[in-house]
Formats: sequence, C-alpha cells, structure tokens
Amino acid sequence: MPKKICISVIGSGGDALNPQIAKIANEVGREIASRGAVLICGGLGGVMAEAAKGAKENGGLTIGILPGEDPGNANPFIDIALPTGLGFARNVLVAYSGDAVIAISGRLGTLSEISYALLKKKPVIGIHTWNLEQLSGRMPSCETQAQAYRNNIIRCENAKEAVDRAFAIIENREKCKNGTN
Amino acid sequence: MPKKICISVIGSGGDALNPQIAKIANEVGREIASRGAVLICGGLGGVMAEAAKGAKENGGLTIGILPGEDPGNANPFIDIALPTGLGFARNVLVAYSGDAVIAISGRLGTLSEISYALLKKKPVIGIHTWNLEQLSGRMPSCETQAQAYRNNIIRCENAKEAVDRAFAIIENREKCKNGTN
Amino acid sequence: MPKKICISVIGSGGDALNPQIAKIANEVGREIASRGAVLICGGLGGVMAEAAKGAKENGGLTIGILPGEDPGNANPFIDIALPTGLGFARNVLVAYSGDAVIAISGRLGTLSEISYALLKKKPVIGIHTWNLEQLSGRMPSCETQAQAYRNNIIRCENAKEAVDRAFAIIENREKCKNGTN
Amino acid sequence: MPKKICISVIGSGGDALNPQIAKIANEVGREIASRGAVLICGGLGGVMAEAAKGAKENGGLTIGILPGEDPGNANPFIDIALPTGLGFARNVLVAYSGDAVIAISGRLGTLSEISYALLKKKPVIGIHTWNLEQLSGRMPSCETQAQAYRNNIIRCENAKEAVDRAFAIIENREKCKNGTN
Repeated sequence: MPKKICISVIGSGGDALNPQIAKIANEVGREIASRGAVLICGGLGGVMAEAAKGAKENGGLTIGILPGEDPGNANPFIDIALPTGLGFARNVLVAYSGDAVIAISGRLGTLSEISYALLKKKPVIGIHTWNLEQLSGRMPSCETQAQAYRNNIIRCENAKEAVDRAFAIIENREKCKNGTN
Repeated sequence: MPKKICISVIGSGGDALNPQIAKIANEVGREIASRGAVLICGGLGGVMAEAAKGAKENGGLTIGILPGEDPGNANPFIDIALPTGLGFARNVLVAYSGDAVIAISGRLGTLSEISYALLKKKPVIGIHTWNLEQLSGRMPSCETQAQAYRNNIIRCENAKEAVDRAFAIIENREKCKNGTN
Repeated sequence: MPKKICISVIGSGGDALNPQIAKIANEVGREIASRGAVLICGGLGGVMAEAAKGAKENGGLTIGILPGEDPGNANPFIDIALPTGLGFARNVLVAYSGDAVIAISGRLGTLSEISYALLKKKPVIGIHTWNLEQLSGRMPSCETQAQAYRNNIIRCENAKEAVDRAFAIIENREKCKNGTN
Repeated sequence: MPKKICISVIGSGGDALNPQIAKIANEVGREIASRGAVLICGGLGGVMAEAAKGAKENGGLTIGILPGEDPGNANPFIDIALPTGLGFARNVLVAYSGDAVIAISGRLGTLSEISYALLKKKPVIGIHTWNLEQLSGRMPSCETQAQAYRNNIIRCENAKEAVDRAFAIIENREKCKNGTN
C-alpha cells in the first residue's frame, strides 16, 4: 500500500493576487490533481486558494495546514483542514509534507518555506519566485553557499512544466530507491 | 463543497499492544471508514497502526501526523504522511485536527492529547482510557474543575458505540450551525 | 561554566485565582529565587504571575514562554519574554525547560504540561493539583499504567516542601552524573 | 519593572566556521553583554557558540533555544538552555525572541530566521549575510516586493556598528512608545 504522492504548493496569501500568478496557481493545482497526487498548502487565500480550487476542479484531494486553531478559516477548496494553532511555525509543516514543493511568486512566508524545504533536501520548483542564486555574498563563504544552492530551486516558466519536473524527480527517486534505475 | 469529516484516533504507540485494545482500535478504524470519514492519527504503531489498518480494510482514507521528519516512519496503513519534526508537540495537531477525538486506552502522550482536545472543546470519546472525573482534588477549586470536565470524556464500551456517539455529536453540531435543529 | 538551574512553575492563568493558591504560587516563586534558580513559566496571569512576582520580590530571574507573538502580553514580573506564537503547543516548552516542574492546582493546560513533563521523565512536584494515581482503569493495562506513574507526581502540601523536594532531586541527579553519589 | 532587552544572534552552526566570521560573532556577543542585554541564540555551535562565548567573556547572560529535547546539547556558553524538541521549527522562536536580530553570515536555517524576523517586523541587522534586495524578480510583483524589503536587512560591516544600530532602533522605538520622541 504505497503512500499517496503529496505536492506542497506555496505562495502568498495576500489579497491583491496578480491575475497571472492566480492563473499559474490554478493550473498547478489542476496538473497536480490530474496526476492523482494530493495537494497540500497553507489553507488560506491567494495562491493557496487558487491552487486548491484548480485541484478541486480536476477532482483532486486538498489538504490545508492552517496557522490558526479554527478549521473554519480554511479556503472553500480545502477538503481536509488541519488547524495547528502554531502561527507561522506551521510553514515548516507545509514545507516538510510534500514529496516536492512548488513555489509560486510569494513573499517572506514563502521564503521561510523555501528555506525549510531546501534544508530537508526536498525538490523545490519555483515559478516567478525568490531567486537564491542571486545572493550577493561579499564573503567567500557566501559565494560557495550560493553555488551550493544554485540548482536547488529549479526554475520553471509555467505550471505544466513545473508539475512535470516535480513528478520526474519524485519518480526518479523512487526508481533509485527500488534499484530499478 | 463541505470539508470532509475527520476523526482523530489516539492511543499508545507501544509495542506490547493488548489484543483486546488492538481489536477495539481496528474496529474504530473500520467504523470511521464505513461512514466515509477521514481517520487522523499520530502515524506510528500500536493503536495508531491498528486503527489505520481497520480504516484501510474498509476503504477509508488515513492521515498520519508524525513526530519526526521522515515520512518513511509512518505505519504501512497511512495514505498521507505529514512529517512535522515537532516531536511530542505534534500531539497538539492530532488533537486539533479531528471533528471528534476517540481515545483508546493510552498513556501519557494520550493524556496530553485528551487535555488539548478538551481545551479546544472537541468531543472526546474514551474507551478504556484515562478518567479525569476521578481526580481527587482536595481543594474546592479542584472539585469544581473535576465536575466541569465530568461529561467531557464520553465513556463508551465498544468501537461501534464510540463512533456512533462521535457522529451523533458532529451531526448535531452541524444542524445547530445551520439552524435546522 | 555550569548552566543555571531552572524550575518550571505551572498552573492556571485564570482570573479567579483562589487566594490560597495565589499565596502558594507566590511562595514557590520566592523559594526558587532564594536558591538562585531561574523561574520559568507560561508568562501569563494567575499562578504564573503570582509565582513570577514572588521570584522578583526575592531578586530572582524570571522567563515567560508565551503562547502569542507579542512580548507585551507577558505579566509585569517577567524579565525575559519569549513569544512563541505556538498557542497551547508552547506548553511543551514550559514542561521541557525546567530541571524540575512544580504544578500548583491547574486545569487542562496544566494537565497537558504534567503529561509532557512525565513523558520526558522530569521530576514533577504537585501541590493541590491533578492526581494521576486515581485513574480508574478498568483494563489491566491501565492499572499497571497507573502504578507506573504513581510516584511520578510527588505530592507536597506547601511551597517550601515542594521547592526543597525539587532541589533535592536535582542535586541528587547531579551527584549521580558526577559519580560522587 | 521593564523587561530585559534581548538580542537574537543567528548564523550557521556548521563546524567549518570561517575565522573572520567567528571573530565577528564573538565581538557581537561581547558588545551585547557590555550593554547589559540578554543574548538569545539557537544554543548550538558555530556562530551561536562564538557569540555566546563573547557574551560570557563580558559577563553577559545567554539563552539557547535548542532544536532537540536534551539541554545537554547546548554549547558550554549557554546559561539557560531551553530544549524545545521542535527541530528547525525552533527557528521561529529564535527570530521572535529578540528585540532585534543580528544575522552573521549563515545558510538556509539563518534564511528561515531572517524571513520570520522580517515577517514580524523585527529590526534585522546583517553582517556578511543573505541579501534579499538582490532578488531577481522577473515579475513586476516581485520587484515591488524586493523594494519593500530593501531596507529591512540593515547591512553593517562590523560587530560594533551592528550592535550600535540594533540598540539605536530599540531605543528609538521605546521613545516613540513613550511619546518622548
């Protein structure tokens, strides 16, 4: 009984969602659902709601890991609301829960989630999001560090490409584990 | 699009699972699944694994909120493993995530989860578990307190009765919310 | 450079603090400070504020591990406010941070902290608080369990006795570690 | 009884600590202690240990908020070890606990802490650390975002300048609160 594949989608919950970003988020949700994977997100609005909406439009299953204690604060496209009461510390859980993480635009909360996902060596696929490789480290140690993470956010231009990359990495990893690769 | 009903099942993860307790946990899982609800647990062994096994045997969906960072530590009956890395603090999340909580036997971890569930005014149904009403408070304040929580762990003798009670409470609550009761 | 000895004091933050309990909490704080130890608590009102007040009256150092994100919510007797934003999950931290835990009366939050402290095998000294040994387990497993924890909440009648017991246990543990016992 | 001023010092716990970074961390710790403030850090090695060492050399008080459950894992310069068992989620607490945050070099964990500190609108002073303003956002929304945070990491070249800036901001904030500015 293999576990279900889970993809975490991260991005800003802000109200003023850029329509282009909203469209991408919706498509990412649809693509995840079309592959039978579970969409995990922070359960609130903005990118989280658009991605969950896309998944539901395609018959997918959605989980929202909420910062507050009230499951009623989940967006209407969340099937399973997990209220944590942990505030922003719940970002750790969103980052850890996906077999891969797809970051769409986003602000500081998204940056914390990207940091945690990379710390756990999760594949992170980014669309119009933070760009860690452009750190301007003046210290030699920082340059090495930038190099170390250069390939860690895999940058994609659109939703389908991003979800394809996420699944390619997950499948490859499974093959390696099973010795069939 | 109503959210799915979630039932948290809590109890010891210890190896030396009493066969009678194991049977009850399995039946609780089966009963939850037969009603189309999602089973949430701490994802490890003992009561958690037996309940998840029962749910899977009946075609249910199971979520394990793990104390560690490795989803691979989930028991084999977990569909969706949420690794938190929070250690025992993840008990809070298990307690918060159910529309009702069913406690089966259990030790100190279970007691922390019962405490949290009652703090959040969740219905807690107990089978052979801690009995808060038998506190011996020598202080008047403690007696009042014992009284206050006397009805908060709803004690049941078997799995079917426990799950029936959980659903009766959840449905009643929904009716009250919708003004149809 | 040995670490400072820390004692966690737990109990209800409720407004209607029983005067007898308030007096005990204040004395516990004073006794902790008089031995040069750091008082750790949840940083809010009730027992937490009285204990911190007692410690400050005796020149002690006080730390409040707050559930919210605003250090301004600490009671006025807290020297160092650690806002966590974790809600009730911060109870875990209060339980873990003391070399010993002193429970004074208390309700469900206190019960969760007692559970966590015993889980981590911390000495827990209780004054007019929950009484785990009076569990009425109908199952053999529960009776064994009650026995196992029977000596784990060390019951004391007054503040001085409680703090004396806490320090006796901590010192004995240090001696055992250093092979001088 | 005003609370003590707390400064969080963040940076990598890695073994291969660059000597230049180690020297800066030590000086930051010394400067914090010389102003009578409490040094808060993640309690482990690298920058955390050097900063705590510097503070202790100057008679300061140090607190380590540890990822694990064992206070014995704190570095030897920590006075008060707070074991959390929260793993990397403890980074949130380190970020929240300072009146200001000083980031010295650092890697992904440090980036998560910077994100959280800026989310809570804490002053963040950076020495040879991540540079959020050099994000390459291709999206207009990202450029605005970069601008928004441009002044949020206050970049300093040395320890004394960094601690001076931290205190200037904290004092100014106090004056504003008290209406004396």
